[in-house]
Amino acid sequence: MKHKTFVLAPDSFKECLTAKAVCQAMESGLKKVFPDAKFIHVPMADGGEGTTQSLVDATNGTLHACQVTSPLGDKITAHYGILGDKTTAVIEMASASGIHLVPKTKRNPLITTTFGTGELIIECLKHGVKKIILGIGGSATNDGGAGMAQALGIKFYDNEGKELPKGGGALGKLAKIDITEVNPLLRNIEIIVASDVSNPLCGEKGASCVFGPQKGATAEMVKQLDQNLQHYASIIKSQLGKEVATIPGAGAAGGLGAGLMAFTNSKMQKGIDIVIHYSELRQKLKGADFCFTGEGGIDYQTKFGKTPYGVAQIAKAQNVPVIALAGTIGKNIEELYPNGIDAIFGIIPSASPIEELLLNGFKNIEQTSENIARLIKISQT
Amino acid sequence: MKHKTFVLAPDSFKECLTAKAVCQAMESGLKKVFPDAKFIHVPMADGGEGTTQSLVDATNGTLHACQVTSPLGDKITAHYGILGDKTTAVIEMASASGIHLVPKTKRNPLITTTFGTGELIIECLKHGVKKIILGIGGSATNDGGAGMAQALGIKFYDNEGKELPKGGGALGKLAKIDITEVNPLLRNIEIIVASDVSNPLCGEKGASCVFGPQKGATAEMVKQLDQNLQHYASIIKSQLGKEVATIPGAGAAGGLGAGLMAFTNSKMQKGIDIVIHYSELRQKLKGADFCFTGEGGIDYQTKFGKTPYGVAQIAKAQNVPVIALAGTIGKNIEELYPNGIDAIFGIIPSASPIEELLLNGFKNIEQTSENIARLIKISQT
Repeated sequence: MKHKTFVLAPDSFKECLTAKAVCQAMESGLKKVFPDAKFIHVPMADGGEGTTQSLVDATNGTLHACQVTSPLGDKITAHYGILGDKTTAVIEMASASGIHLVPKTKRNPLITTTFGTGELIIECLKHGVKKIILGIGGSATNDGGAGMAQALGIKFYDNEGKELPKGGGALGKLAKIDITEVNPLLRNIEIIVASDVSNPLCGEKGASCVFGPQKGATAEMVKQLDQNLQHYASIIKSQLGKEVATIPGAGAAGGLGAGLMAFTNSKMQKGIDIVIHYSELRQKLKGADFCFTGEGGIDYQTKFGKTPYGVAQIAKAQNVPVIALAGTIGKNIEELYPNGIDAIFGIIPSASPIEELLLNGFKNIEQTSENIARLIKISQT
Repeated sequence: MKHKTFVLAPDSFKECLTAKAVCQAMESGLKKVFPDAKFIHVPMADGGEGTTQSLVDATNGTLHACQVTSPLGDKITAHYGILGDKTTAVIEMASASGIHLVPKTKRNPLITTTFGTGELIIECLKHGVKKIILGIGGSATNDGGAGMAQALGIKFYDNEGKELPKGGGALGKLAKIDITEVNPLLRNIEIIVASDVSNPLCGEKGASCVFGPQKGATAEMVKQLDQNLQHYASIIKSQLGKEVATIPGAGAAGGLGAGLMAFTNSKMQKGIDIVIHYSELRQKLKGADFCFTGEGGIDYQTKFGKTPYGVAQIAKAQNVPVIALAGTIGKNIEELYPNGIDAIFGIIPSASPIEELLLNGFKNIEQTSENIARLIKISQT
């Protein structure tokens, strides 16, 4: 029998293991049965939490920390990655401007700002990169990306010529945008925005109405924030000639989508597609015998842009069978079978408290992988 | 591809599903992938709880209920089975004399009796059977099987000629055993005792010392019970000419082992071996492609006489690969791999309360079996 090649392309198991650690656990289990096999680790992500870590791990890049401004104006430590190619950076906006950084009682999208995300972009630019991958899930903000723009050197004035304070609540007074002092490092930079959100900036399906409440906005605030973003878009249109209000995705991350469209050279792509591209998953799958993927939770919604589904699409196109592991198997996973995932296995060995299961994640993935390998072996002989 | 044959030979999943229901869940899952396969159901047991139900199910026999005497003397409903061959009955002593029938505060092996087990034997004999399979785990008693013997017509007298009361506490006064009125139906009957216990009747490793405490005996009571069984054995020896005190297994089920040796035509066998024989597992495995087994819990101790291990031994001898499912996977299952179990999979889909997992047992076994089948299929193509 020729030596097998296993491509290991899981997402992270949230609150348990990074995608890289999941790869290691899978290899450790599979290797007990196929000691001579080749194992190719491709730690994955879908543009959400863990994307920076996984793309750094998948490309042998480097992870960096820096001080930035939190959504409420404090100084916090955020992270960004430089990929192995040294010309591409990767950021999660949530690292600087995420909802998890704001205690529940202080959530107020009138004042929270994306300023820290802009600072993170500047930090990346100092490394001389040409591209920035920017994951924009999990924001605490509703400022249309104005905070980010301020960090990049763009000025927002009211009709008395005073600079606007930070936050979505001030945008109603916007009278003039000055882009003359934009950071020169931003020239010739492409920002690839990882977003699966297609909401417009304003209106019933806009950023304020759909995502405002989960960021702490009352009904009253939602109304004001929506009007402010509408006004913001009209000023952008009249002074910069850019139509952002109605473009799908402009409403992502409290309108950060719109800000990126207005002030940077950016394009939006599905998160999983970006990770597949930069991790070179397609090339690494060539000639593989099996592809292992997985995520903390898998259910029928996995087909809406989650890692195991995205991985399966690529593997299937190359006729590589796909086996998925999950900590939690949810409803209607049979909907995933015709879409490229061949088999799905849970890793929980016994009814135990969740804290204990999270502690034993490595061992449980290892043991499940070993038994899958044992089943493969007896099925083939 | 030729149509596959799957032999499904699980134990019950305790407090969740009978072995028969486990077979049905396995078939339901496997059939989604191999619709033309042949499925042979062999509901298994190891001589413990569920043995009656499984052997009835495995042989298309019948299950019967009857009124018997509980360990404390109440009337309770117990069950026994008549196998499909109509000449063999199956009983679990625990159904009539089990520890679960006595509330914790009332546990007292000085007075608990195996009388109900004797009554169950009589009930079976009324069906004209030639053999009785008797599982003797889980007893509440320490009476040396004297209660059973009383139900069969044997009389125990003290030295004043008065009949002894029931329970292990009275045996110290035993002076005379009268077997002349033993139930005539008992002639020519063989009792096959399913027991994995090799403890002798008396002494440090005897019934009273080892198992007495878990039946409610204090240190004082253990001492008296042990002395009583010693005396009981000496009377059996002097009056019936049978040596039971030192025979391995005599101490099983509070000395019921000794009583069976003294008063019936019986032999002891490992529970799993009995079930394998009467279920005709060996014959049914002939030419099978896969054998599925399983039990509520599997760990390294499974190799000490538990169903999945016993099934694996038989399957391996015929080169049939063995896949085991478990609700709980415990420690060191790798010790089972060299002993015939090829792969082990848990069935728990998510960290959930045990009550919910028990309610969803069928669905979880079905889903796991389906995914195992899907993995088998992609591994073979």
